[in-house]
Amino acid sequence: MARNFDVVAMGNAIVDVFAPVDDGFLLTHKIAKGVMTLIDEYRANQLYHAFGERVEAAGGSAANTMAGLVSLGARGMFIGKVKADRLGEAFAASLLAGGIHYATRPADDGPPTACSLIAVAPDGQRSMNTHLGASRELSPEDIDEADIGSAEILYIEGYLWDSEVSKAASQKAIAIARQAGTKVAFTLSDPFCVGRYREDFLALVENDLDILFANEDEAKALFEVEEFDAVLQRFGQWGRIAALTRSAKGCVVVGGGEVHVIDAAPVARVVDTTGAGDQFAAGFLFGLVRGKPLSKSGRLGALAAAEVISHYGARPETSLEALAAKAGLL
Amino acid sequence: MARNFDVVAMGNAIVDVFAPVDDGFLLTHKIAKGVMTLIDEYRANQLYHAFGERVEAAGGSAANTMAGLVSLGARGMFIGKVKADRLGEAFAASLLAGGIHYATRPADDGPPTACSLIAVAPDGQRSMNTHLGASRELSPEDIDEADIGSAEILYIEGYLWDSEVSKAASQKAIAIARQAGTKVAFTLSDPFCVGRYREDFLALVENDLDILFANEDEAKALFEVEEFDAVLQRFGQWGRIAALTRSAKGCVVVGGGEVHVIDAAPVARVVDTTGAGDQFAAGFLFGLVRGKPLSKSGRLGALAAAEVISHYGARPETSLEALAAKAGLL
Repeated sequence: MARNFDVVAMGNAIVDVFAPVDDGFLLTHKIAKGVMTLIDEYRANQLYHAFGERVEAAGGSAANTMAGLVSLGARGMFIGKVKADRLGEAFAASLLAGGIHYATRPADDGPPTACSLIAVAPDGQRSMNTHLGASRELSPEDIDEADIGSAEILYIEGYLWDSEVSKAASQKAIAIARQAGTKVAFTLSDPFCVGRYREDFLALVENDLDILFANEDEAKALFEVEEFDAVLQRFGQWGRIAALTRSAKGCVVVGGGEVHVIDAAPVARVVDTTGAGDQFAAGFLFGLVRGKPLSKSGRLGALAAAEVISHYGARPETSLEALAAKAGLL
Repeated sequence: MARNFDVVAMGNAIVDVFAPVDDGFLLTHKIAKGVMTLIDEYRANQLYHAFGERVEAAGGSAANTMAGLVSLGARGMFIGKVKADRLGEAFAASLLAGGIHYATRPADDGPPTACSLIAVAPDGQRSMNTHLGASRELSPEDIDEADIGSAEILYIEGYLWDSEVSKAASQKAIAIARQAGTKVAFTLSDPFCVGRYREDFLALVENDLDILFANEDEAKALFEVEEFDAVLQRFGQWGRIAALTRSAKGCVVVGGGEVHVIDAAPVARVVDTTGAGDQFAAGFLFGLVRGKPLSKSGRLGALAAAEVISHYGARPETSLEALAAKAGLL
């Protein structure tokens, strides 16, 4: 089968809506500072209208990764569900503008396009209020066999397990990928997400994945261990590829009997760590699809993560391809 | 042969002499702030007498390691040269008080016992002025075959290469150890030291060592590489044990096909990093002689290093054995 895409990514299709607020606003609207809270449609509407000045940007973990991949020069496709509403159109437009193939049929009815209403306090702390809305409706019918088989790698975010139909869609995509020789990559997404679906994720690791992304907390939660080294020993015996990110400590990449310890790339000033994991995955996957060794793929991941934490927002603002070329990683 | 000692350590026998000074003192005496300078006997005398209030403490890298080993409960011996003078007697007394076997014959004439005159400025910065004196006179005649063979591990500091006779003494000890089945451990000591003796150290790694200690800068200097991961890949193929320390990033331990990434142990407040590498070596060697796995040996090293950087001075002030027991590492 012709591989028209380097990576096809599946995830929640979310529009981020940012607004500067003061602490009074957080108190008035009972927003817990500095954390992510899942909210319902009523509250999403209420907050959206209470936000004065707003900036909208397409988000979602796997979609952010895809934005990083195309910034590196990869050919990519995204699968995720929006509603046919204004935010849904904005989400689709942002992908198409980036050259990402996106053809998931939008929902005509039901809840609105997912949004994360992000209140940015004067001290820079961000309070995320996420309404998953239409993104939860991604279903097995949205998965096309030819699409999955046309990519080198299928990349899925663990957050999709938060919806039964999205989980079923993911499982269908994985089954197709295994049949078609498309490699399966997965991110554990969040330590709480691991806590909710630990048995499922362990079974995926055991049976289905070729490549796993996890940050240190997620990986410890998966194996219920306290030491990073205990995580490393588990993956050392796994045989497939694990990319374990450790924030400022860099990452450890394991695969094919090799262990690589890779430093975080230098950042003049860390502005906003949102999206660091998403962009690490972009750089690392790009290295793999271009046949780079694990060490270089890890360095590409570190480079992409460093770019995104040097500014606000979860997608690259500079050409990652140019940065990678300058660093001698292409 | 009966192994009466866990470790026999060889190194420069140095007494540290501390004095609080002000910046005017540094200017008057032309002391470069914050660095280590090798000085001659005349200048050592001059500074020693200019120091007002003085605190003396036995030092020297391998001797510090031996102090850590006995604090963990090991049986140890030290080989290093002092002169039969007041500082030499103080050095010997400190070892004997710690229960370390020490029988190297002191020099009757020649330069005085080595001292490091450490000027401590009001901001806490330390300027070390080291006169190697009698320590450079450690010679092959000081090496007794029975002593070396009576230990599980021979531990040698790279600083001994700064003297031709001490280097010859080290080489004699290594040859005996290999004959006697005593394992040979070595520390690269300092990146500048690696720069001076790189070819010799590479030959040791290739032919003679069972266990190597290196911090990140030393290891990079040894292989003339820029990335830590490049160091790791070299040692991954080496087959013997390498303990690579990375300051706040913890350590990476390689051996027998295993790679362990071990975090630095928590420290409430880092007061003085002097001796961190020496104490890491103490904890790690203790783990090895007690048959602990590499991961636990690495954690013992991290624990000992954390103790010593939490206070001034390069030797433990708390029982490392008690700390290790509390941490469940014994």
